[in-house]
Amino acid sequence: MKVRTESGTKDVRAVWFEDGKTVMIDQRRLPHELIFVSFDRYEDVAESIRNMTTRGAPSIGATAAYGMCLAALSGADIDEAAKVMKAARPTANDLFYATDYMVEKVKAGADPIKSADGYAQSMVDKCTLIGNYGAELIKDGFKVMTHCNAGALATVDVGTALAPIRRAFADGKKFFVYASETRPRLQGMQLTAWELNQEGIDHAIIPDGSSGHYIREGVDMIIVGADRIAANGDFANKIGTFEKAVLAKEFGVPFYVAAPISTFDFNTKTGEDIVIENRSEEEVTMVGDIRIAPVGSPALNPAFDMTPAKYVTGFITEKGILKPNEIEKVKE
Amino acid sequence: MKVRTESGTKDVRAVWFEDGKTVMIDQRRLPHELIFVSFDRYEDVAESIRNMTTRGAPSIGATAAYGMCLAALSGADIDEAAKVMKAARPTANDLFYATDYMVEKVKAGADPIKSADGYAQSMVDKCTLIGNYGAELIKDGFKVMTHCNAGALATVDVGTALAPIRRAFADGKKFFVYASETRPRLQGMQLTAWELNQEGIDHAIIPDGSSGHYIREGVDMIIVGADRIAANGDFANKIGTFEKAVLAKEFGVPFYVAAPISTFDFNTKTGEDIVIENRSEEEVTMVGDIRIAPVGSPALNPAFDMTPAKYVTGFITEKGILKPNEIEKVKE
Repeated sequence: MKVRTESGTKDVRAVWFEDGKTVMIDQRRLPHELIFVSFDRYEDVAESIRNMTTRGAPSIGATAAYGMCLAALSGADIDEAAKVMKAARPTANDLFYATDYMVEKVKAGADPIKSADGYAQSMVDKCTLIGNYGAELIKDGFKVMTHCNAGALATVDVGTALAPIRRAFADGKKFFVYASETRPRLQGMQLTAWELNQEGIDHAIIPDGSSGHYIREGVDMIIVGADRIAANGDFANKIGTFEKAVLAKEFGVPFYVAAPISTFDFNTKTGEDIVIENRSEEEVTMVGDIRIAPVGSPALNPAFDMTPAKYVTGFITEKGILKPNEIEKVKE
Repeated sequence: MKVRTESGTKDVRAVWFEDGKTVMIDQRRLPHELIFVSFDRYEDVAESIRNMTTRGAPSIGATAAYGMCLAALSGADIDEAAKVMKAARPTANDLFYATDYMVEKVKAGADPIKSADGYAQSMVDKCTLIGNYGAELIKDGFKVMTHCNAGALATVDVGTALAPIRRAFADGKKFFVYASETRPRLQGMQLTAWELNQEGIDHAIIPDGSSGHYIREGVDMIIVGADRIAANGDFANKIGTFEKAVLAKEFGVPFYVAAPISTFDFNTKTGEDIVIENRSEEEVTMVGDIRIAPVGSPALNPAFDMTPAKYVTGFITEKGILKPNEIEKVKE
């Protein structure tokens, strides 16, 4: 992804390996400051995952791979290092998968840096393909809406929902992006708008509740990411996604989900089987240390919602654009 | 409305006249502190309207009436006072209407206090009737959703959308209210939830983008207020209203608009004729003095949206519940 630094525009990833160190964007400082931090101890990389210096499942996986790379290079006990790394976050499947991948590579005598770079690159390659397929859908003059952050910050580089947008922009297409702010944690405002602004892509932040107003006024397509896609095409994504899908259907606006095949969970039959995480009230009732809600009023904070397959026009994957009834054919 | 004070529960209005003074809730301090302020100079009442100590069109109207009452009692030039009062806010029709009403009454020799009290009471009476009609729709066990604040704070007392909720609660019905927070200004979180909490009505604040999630899960009715209703039943209300109407239709949930007949604008043929006010970006990108959005990212901030009549189940008015095609019969 392109970022702006004092010395000009620079091409960076969310995380990479350089001069014997794991380097990453400190995502906790965004969108206010672009700070790169680097670590030469695997324990510190585990801590960077725990304290959310880096976030987004694919970026967490790559960070873990680079952390395990440090462990291998320093001669640390690789199984002990894996234990520390896996304890950093409780539920990110990519964290466990990447750590195990590196343990296997290291034990087989593979080069740790090449192995970790390979792991990160494979995610970037998938995103690039998603971008190539998805960009075909974006025409000159389009108004595109997205939600939350399915961008380069979350996926090492390029992004999923933002991949077609980046590619269409690189191809010289002129279009406009609505980034809905994504309460309560504001990833749309603070991460997606930040990425678009860094790249110079024409956009505006909108309150989530104004999405319908703009969809009726004229949005040409909606692209979102996904946290999990069930075998029947129902999918879970950040809270607020489902509303956009219903509004898109009401106004005949194409609604696309951009995700790598690894997001499809063929063991989950339908969206009804996806358990929605409820997060703390404080994410809704507080801004930083300041309470914005009345004392005594409870708040509900579902982190995700589930959108039935019937609202999905297509899934943009590294293997092409699939209709909900075509998902089974990419079962690996 | 009931409020909780250190000495127990108290019944108050948003604004009233007492011991020669205009007294009001300082709505800028809500939901954090309940402070009553009082003024004995009409110029200070005008200032309280200007600086939004009081807000909501009907409450502004009543405040202006009480301010004009102070002017009359002090022997001030009533036309001069009217000029000062009308300059307090640029667009509130109730402000102009209430001021003219008081000028006429005072010039005709009517008692200023009785006239102002009468003005305020007539709004409360309408809200009470709206509550009586609307409460019939709320059954035991219902989950009711509302948006923004169409409560007692905005209408002297009782409220419009909150009137049926207050009445059903007074009747001993058990139900639950979802108050969507209403970004960017959070009137749902900071005013509606505050009112419900003061009264002890079971509720929760939800992020606007989770409305669809809860509507699909099972909401029994949605009640909102209105800023303006066109002759064909299309209406404008706080941004985020339209999305709920579309979601309600998709899931067969009754969608009601609670408003006095004075909100119907028979000179406006359809919703397409209603101009939507766009407010400052800073309401979206700042919280207090703190910028939360990336520097360089613009934001859009439409204050209202328009909901076509076809999404409305009924209008709850002081003359009963009207279907969109029955509006003409209440034309005054």
